[in-house]
Amino acid sequence: MKTHTVYKTFQTAQRREFVRITEDVQDAVDESGVREGMVLVSAMHITAGVWVNDDEPGILEDALEWLDKLAPATWQSPPNEVARELLPDDGDYRHHRGGEDNGDAHFKNLLVHHQVVLPITEGRLDLGPWQAVFYCEFDGRRRKRLVIKVMGE
Amino acid sequence: MKTHTVYKTFQTAQRREFVRITEDVQDAVDESGVREGMVLVSAMHITAGVWVNDDEPGILEDALEWLDKLAPATWQSPPNEVARELLPDDGDYRHHRGGEDNGDAHFKNLLVHHQVVLPITEGRLDLGPWQAVFYCEFDGRRRKRLVIKVMGE
Amino acid sequence: MKTHTVYKTFQTAQRREFVRITEDVQDAVDESGVREGMVLVSAMHITAGVWVNDDEPGILEDALEWLDKLAPATWQSPPNEVARELLPDDGDYRHHRGGEDNGDAHFKNLLVHHQVVLPITEGRLDLGPWQAVFYCEFDGRRRKRLVIKVMGE
Repeated sequence: MKTHTVYKTFQTAQRREFVRITEDVQDAVDESGVREGMVLVSAMHITAGVWVNDDEPGILEDALEWLDKLAPATWQSPPNEVARELLPDDGDYRHHRGGEDNGDAHFKNLLVHHQVVLPITEGRLDLGPWQAVFYCEFDGRRRKRLVIKVMGE
Repeated sequence: MKTHTVYKTFQTAQRREFVRITEDVQDAVDESGVREGMVLVSAMHITAGVWVNDDEPGILEDALEWLDKLAPATWQSPPNEVARELLPDDGDYRHHRGGEDNGDAHFKNLLVHHQVVLPITEGRLDLGPWQAVFYCEFDGRRRKRLVIKVMGE
Repeated sequence: MKTHTVYKTFQTAQRREFVRITEDVQDAVDESGVREGMVLVSAMHITAGVWVNDDEPGILEDALEWLDKLAPATWQSPPNEVARELLPDDGDYRHHRGGEDNGDAHFKNLLVHHQVVLPITEGRLDLGPWQAVFYCEFDGRRRKRLVIKVMGE
């Protein structure tokens, strides 16, 4: 059995940003020499996620608009009445009492999830033709880390 | 260490459909000879998911109604005002500019997630008594694939 | 390759409760002797979840308020109009026709997800500094189980 661990660091220009990492994950698999197994791709932060979806700009923009309604930020006006009602009843997250302003990013993390496990078959990520892997930053503009753990033989 | 890979193809009669696959996953485990390990069950599409929940028809119908409010389709009228407000502000997903009409299915995929990892103990899926595994189709009526990857010893 | 399986039982005092289990998962890793690998942490129920986030009381209280809006319970008044509209159109979950009252817990399970896979590096859970692991009970006050499956070498 082999394992191989790679850490990636991101510092996004935008507060929220989707970064394609499919090739980084494949590189980690290549380095590992694993032909059959699994690879875990996991954000090491509580305000980021990993999503497998379509590398189509419209989807990514739609996703951000939609996530901003479901998990609204308090550092911007709620985009509409539904978002306003999904904010905490007191108008601000309890989490912000300590001086933070990223409560929304914790719930975007919950919705998107912070990790995925991908199958490796014959040395390749065994993904469907439109599946791309994204690191989803919801509170960026600072250094954040991701761990890629390959396991197999 | 052993690995075993099985692909399943679905062509659902309905656009949205939950298909129970617990037994298919157990069959893959049986074929693998793995007694202790994990099995990854992963939709190979960006408009489908895998959910572990109760095989009770009411839950599945409830789930579809609820997902249609949270991630509304534009090929049907929004079921209510909340769903209407959760649609993109311009009324249609940017993703549809290319001629697609399945934007909602991408976000149902996000909510449900496209994969699960299940424990294998003494050769059996180590599930609780009410846990069943479902392939969740959100844009069906065409061939879609799922990969089952067993790993262990 | 080694595997190690641990079951934990919870009986929470509250119907909904977040229980920190980071140390229990590390203990399972320690017992296993695995230095490099993965650990699956999976609720064995369809009304519970596992979440990796911040061990900060405000976040956990925020999370519960927010989940109660997105996946509203019928054993309490909907907290606001959005929650009311996210309830089933007939006002009650179909799942409750059999006498249950925990439909909301099934959808909180969907949002949170019932399992996570965590990386193990040099014998330690390879988590970021603020990542804590929580068992998320959404229908407690009775015995519920969780399985921890360690795999690696």
